[in-house]
Amino acid sequence: MIRSKIIGTGAHIPIQNVTNDYFLNNTFYNNDHTVIEQSPETIIRKFKAITGIEQRRYAPVGMAVSDIGTFAAEEAIANAAIDRELIDLIIVAHNYGDMKYNGAPRDMVPSVASRIKHKLGIRNVKCIPFDIIFGCPGWLQALLQADLAIRSGDAGTCLVIGSETLSRVIDPSDRDGMIFSDGAGACIVQRSIDGDSGIINTAVRSDTGDEVEYICSSGTNKGDETEPHFIKMKGRKVYEYALKNVPQAMKECFDKSGKNICDLKMIFLHQANDKMDEAIVKRFFELYGIEDLPENIMPMNISTMGNSSVATIPTLLHQVLNGELAPFQLSEGDLIMFASVGAGMNINALTYKW
Amino acid sequence: MIRSKIIGTGAHIPIQNVTNDYFLNNTFYNNDHTVIEQSPETIIRKFKAITGIEQRRYAPVGMAVSDIGTFAAEEAIANAAIDRELIDLIIVAHNYGDMKYNGAPRDMVPSVASRIKHKLGIRNVKCIPFDIIFGCPGWLQALLQADLAIRSGDAGTCLVIGSETLSRVIDPSDRDGMIFSDGAGACIVQRSIDGDSGIINTAVRSDTGDEVEYICSSGTNKGDETEPHFIKMKGRKVYEYALKNVPQAMKECFDKSGKNICDLKMIFLHQANDKMDEAIVKRFFELYGIEDLPENIMPMNISTMGNSSVATIPTLLHQVLNGELAPFQLSEGDLIMFASVGAGMNINALTYKW
Repeated sequence: MIRSKIIGTGAHIPIQNVTNDYFLNNTFYNNDHTVIEQSPETIIRKFKAITGIEQRRYAPVGMAVSDIGTFAAEEAIANAAIDRELIDLIIVAHNYGDMKYNGAPRDMVPSVASRIKHKLGIRNVKCIPFDIIFGCPGWLQALLQADLAIRSGDAGTCLVIGSETLSRVIDPSDRDGMIFSDGAGACIVQRSIDGDSGIINTAVRSDTGDEVEYICSSGTNKGDETEPHFIKMKGRKVYEYALKNVPQAMKECFDKSGKNICDLKMIFLHQANDKMDEAIVKRFFELYGIEDLPENIMPMNISTMGNSSVATIPTLLHQVLNGELAPFQLSEGDLIMFASVGAGMNINALTYKW
Repeated sequence: MIRSKIIGTGAHIPIQNVTNDYFLNNTFYNNDHTVIEQSPETIIRKFKAITGIEQRRYAPVGMAVSDIGTFAAEEAIANAAIDRELIDLIIVAHNYGDMKYNGAPRDMVPSVASRIKHKLGIRNVKCIPFDIIFGCPGWLQALLQADLAIRSGDAGTCLVIGSETLSRVIDPSDRDGMIFSDGAGACIVQRSIDGDSGIINTAVRSDTGDEVEYICSSGTNKGDETEPHFIKMKGRKVYEYALKNVPQAMKECFDKSGKNICDLKMIFLHQANDKMDEAIVKRFFELYGIEDLPENIMPMNISTMGNSSVATIPTLLHQVLNGELAPFQLSEGDLIMFASVGAGMNINALTYKW
């Protein structure tokens, strides 16, 4: 049976480490342009309690998604120990294109994937690069596309990258801005015919009624209509949507895999928000009548990394494989799951045998 | 045999008809910021002689790619006479996201495909929308992705859209700006198991050495470094690249189809430039030892439509099917070919039995 197997991973953690103190002098506003009465100290304390975020990473000025995506890709190629000229497909997930500094023009002509292929020095004209736009679940969706190409015989080896610089689209008057960060993660996926390790199955869901405005772009909370616009999130709506639909989508995916829930070793969830991620996984297991979360089921890095959109899952996977998130570790044969939710709204999930 | 078959098409021709006279008061500059000595009249006359462009279409202020893409999609759905709730996949090709006016922020959060699904009122949560970024050949690449999903059994019915508002990224001091236009085209592709009509095979090529800068973004030719940047093209480089590589890629694709060149009825080529398109098709046939172009082999609409990037091929196809480009018409069983070239640089080609 043809399976798509991850044979190497890489990640780039941007150098600028931004602690919550960085925002102490901000004045925060509600969506209706009224000042939030609480002090920044109180706002930040509550923010940390809900999201779990203490620090996040920003890329330095001049470094764009194609740059940090290339760093992650270089590591994934080295880690997989493959000849880069054998890569058939490069798929890059992002949401804002290349932005070299705050408010910079969003550039994807040529595509970010073409830029990364250029920076990797790949000369093979049969290596096809394209970008996919799918909100935060973009990297996982790119992995699904790579799997499709591999299963259909169109590709043998794929490079799948998620890269984002959300620091460039943050409204300083919006509390939610403290969630977002920069980062890049990548993996090499290869056609495998020996054994049964690799991608087992997937499930995807899209809601575009009122949900289309849950994560979008607009002016500042303070009321400035300066452009370009900033990333905006209807936090409560997103939370309710995610809690209602992500566990169901995960269950649909897992059930289709034909596996036993007791054998599920680890869940790699999009690092959106500490409390939300916990609630999602708790509800997922409740759907199977399991009240107590299995131990060490969900590695998290949001406290130090923030939410880097498309980069969270591949970065998390790379860190676990690198032993950076002990006691989490993966062994051959482990049954794992990936799941994500984000702008669209979109949800995807994937079961995988390591 | 499973084939992906186009069962409906649609196009949106923006209402603002812009003739070449529109540019008579512009002052044109070279890339090195020196004024072009010729009068605008002379520049425009030469421009028309080379590109064939007399008019182009611009979308009115406030109308973005997700709007005009929706118009094209509505027509394709009506033309295919399908229930929109049966669409499994919506893939939208574009390069700059939603821009409501010249220089507007480029917005794709949520993705353009999610916005179009919303505007189409599709409620099916299993209808998955995503965007693909691949330069001008984006629509054809999206069609390839739809074909992949159909062949692998992941999708039965796909909506494939190309939508672009290049008028929003034109530098008025750059002659090349006169090439670009706005437009949207769409098709419904469906899994077909009866008969042999549909997509036969494809070929794709990517060059990302020096070619990565042949079509890109930068400040004005006049020398302003105002942002956001404008679409820029190294015209001669693009011409030489296309003439060298597109005919070869088309031949590679056609040869893999196993068909006889004498049976090729029509070629739908990306509307980039009249003279370039003619030269490409001429050289393609020369590769088969055919010196004289077959009659009515290549429908063109660039003289009135300009180059609307991802929208050119689906618009052209829709116009031919609608009898708007007489004497060109398609009959069941006709062997045709699609081919495109653009930023990346990317080339793709596809053979199809109508």
